[in-house]
Amino acid sequence: MQDPRINRLARILVRDSLKVKPGETVLIQANDQAKPLVLSVYREVLQAGAHPRLSLGLDEAREIFLREASERQIREFPQISLYEAKHVDALVAIHAPGNLKDMSSVAPERSVARARVLKPIQEHLTEKVRWVLCNYPTPALAQEAEMSLEEYERFLFGATNLDWAGKKQGMTRIARAFERADTVRIVGKETDLTLGIQGRRFVVASGECNMPDGEIFTGPLEDATEGRIYYEFPAIYGGREVFGVRLRFEKGRVVKAQAEKNHRFLKTMLAADPGAKILGELGIGLNEKIRRFTKDILLDEKIGGTVHLALGKSYPETGGKNKSAIHWDMIKDLRRQGELYLDGKLVQKNGKFLI
Amino acid sequence: MQDPRINRLARILVRDSLKVKPGETVLIQANDQAKPLVLSVYREVLQAGAHPRLSLGLDEAREIFLREASERQIREFPQISLYEAKHVDALVAIHAPGNLKDMSSVAPERSVARARVLKPIQEHLTEKVRWVLCNYPTPALAQEAEMSLEEYERFLFGATNLDWAGKKQGMTRIARAFERADTVRIVGKETDLTLGIQGRRFVVASGECNMPDGEIFTGPLEDATEGRIYYEFPAIYGGREVFGVRLRFEKGRVVKAQAEKNHRFLKTMLAADPGAKILGELGIGLNEKIRRFTKDILLDEKIGGTVHLALGKSYPETGGKNKSAIHWDMIKDLRRQGELYLDGKLVQKNGKFLI
Repeated sequence: MQDPRINRLARILVRDSLKVKPGETVLIQANDQAKPLVLSVYREVLQAGAHPRLSLGLDEAREIFLREASERQIREFPQISLYEAKHVDALVAIHAPGNLKDMSSVAPERSVARARVLKPIQEHLTEKVRWVLCNYPTPALAQEAEMSLEEYERFLFGATNLDWAGKKQGMTRIARAFERADTVRIVGKETDLTLGIQGRRFVVASGECNMPDGEIFTGPLEDATEGRIYYEFPAIYGGREVFGVRLRFEKGRVVKAQAEKNHRFLKTMLAADPGAKILGELGIGLNEKIRRFTKDILLDEKIGGTVHLALGKSYPETGGKNKSAIHWDMIKDLRRQGELYLDGKLVQKNGKFLI
Repeated sequence: MQDPRINRLARILVRDSLKVKPGETVLIQANDQAKPLVLSVYREVLQAGAHPRLSLGLDEAREIFLREASERQIREFPQISLYEAKHVDALVAIHAPGNLKDMSSVAPERSVARARVLKPIQEHLTEKVRWVLCNYPTPALAQEAEMSLEEYERFLFGATNLDWAGKKQGMTRIARAFERADTVRIVGKETDLTLGIQGRRFVVASGECNMPDGEIFTGPLEDATEGRIYYEFPAIYGGREVFGVRLRFEKGRVVKAQAEKNHRFLKTMLAADPGAKILGELGIGLNEKIRRFTKDILLDEKIGGTVHLALGKSYPETGGKNKSAIHWDMIKDLRRQGELYLDGKLVQKNGKFLI
């Protein structure tokens, strides 16, 4: 018998996240590792009266391609995949890596070149198609999270298999409280940072596009951030971990940046373009079932009692206007020592909301 | 390290069977069971300068669909798959069943209805695209063949990994000898059957479309078959096995038919339509590496020292004119007791060619 937690997750993805309707075509993107969830989603899509379509890749094939393809092959545009993207209504993208380091011997510029070729397909899927991204528990993800597979399964399904409609209500109340305020002040270990949020929208993310989910986020005013922040979790970008990041902001911009490890990489990223020194996102983690940092941004940014601040590009739907080639989420833990203030009023203490 | 026999098979499929050229797009149709061969074919296609495209299905998803889909879902035409078929140059179809009986609880009329919906895609692939069909060794295939997996691997790769260009020469010589004759006479246990082949073409099948391969075949004259034949191997159609088939022909048509087991099914099939009583194919098995009957027509019809006669539809490229909804291959073993005559001249004795 199949693990009932997998069936429950599939039902959430198809019914709650995508709200699949009869007659729609739903693309299920995954690899062979995710087979039990793929089959469960496939069945749920059928039961919703829609048409499931499998798009199964192999991690090993991707590695072979990126390592061995000629320049001409890398530049080849897969017209069939674009046609496919244009003829589906919804997408379930399942992340089930067999080995998080399988790209170690691939030259990054080849990956970037291929991603550039595939961009029209990716853009169509993210902009014109309803999509949800989720994790499926694999030994590789468990290893990265420093858990056994069984422990990781409990952890992951514990964070995904929730009453998302119910959660949305509570999260919306918190978002409305933030939207009524002009400033957010974050106080914590070596941290006292104030952000302007006047007129900005807080998006409630309660399972529509990410699974697990559980955050509200906005784009802070681009010229208002003042103060300093210390991140106790490593800041991860493209697989690189930067430890002990300390940033000082004046008039919205980073004016001082330090890291205990990989300092040079931090400086390089901040110099990427003018927008890279400005915050594009303030997110508030609201998933109380996620307590452990697992080096996986999909989960880490939702840890209840944390906030995350992203350098770079903002999401236009929040009212944020910052532009940049980067979007680098860094997560600040407020659970041991932390306070959040809205217009000077304490609303969260040591990770627990008072509102 | 990957089994070198798999890499060798992949090379044969891409270079010898399909003769893939730079810039072509090659569809690799398989399921997750065939992953090692899929990856090997993928790499070979890349090395040929072409563009591999994966089309991976799951046996379990097919079963879920056929069991649970609504009438409307069964009738839904997958436009994306037709587009895909129309935009590929070649197809490697890998057969790697996980369970040969996984359709046992599916109503056959639902499978038939779905096959009818998919027919334009299947027709395009078989008629407009270069294709090759091959087996990949799975426990299910080994079990059906009554072998261990390791034994089946030796058996299968032994029959596929051959010098096909070299084999083609010898096979072509035999085909030309048959084409020069007006009649073939098959003599064996309870068997003395004469077929007219005047003016008909013998196609040499040496790895272009099947792997393993190794047969020559024609469509015999529709009104000339005379005599009787006994088949020592079961005649299998759509998973049904008919044992001890005995047929008597007059002026090309079956006039008497008996079977030791499943006699009624044999009679029903013969009554399918007027063409079902007429031979559509005479094939001569020429793969000496295939010695054992494994209930798998892809391999059985190529057993060196056997001939197969198909009731029903003939292949137009042979000059055969018979039409029928069925094409039922039955295999006659000539290795213990058998003779083949061309125009009265003995050319094969107990499965060994004398020419």
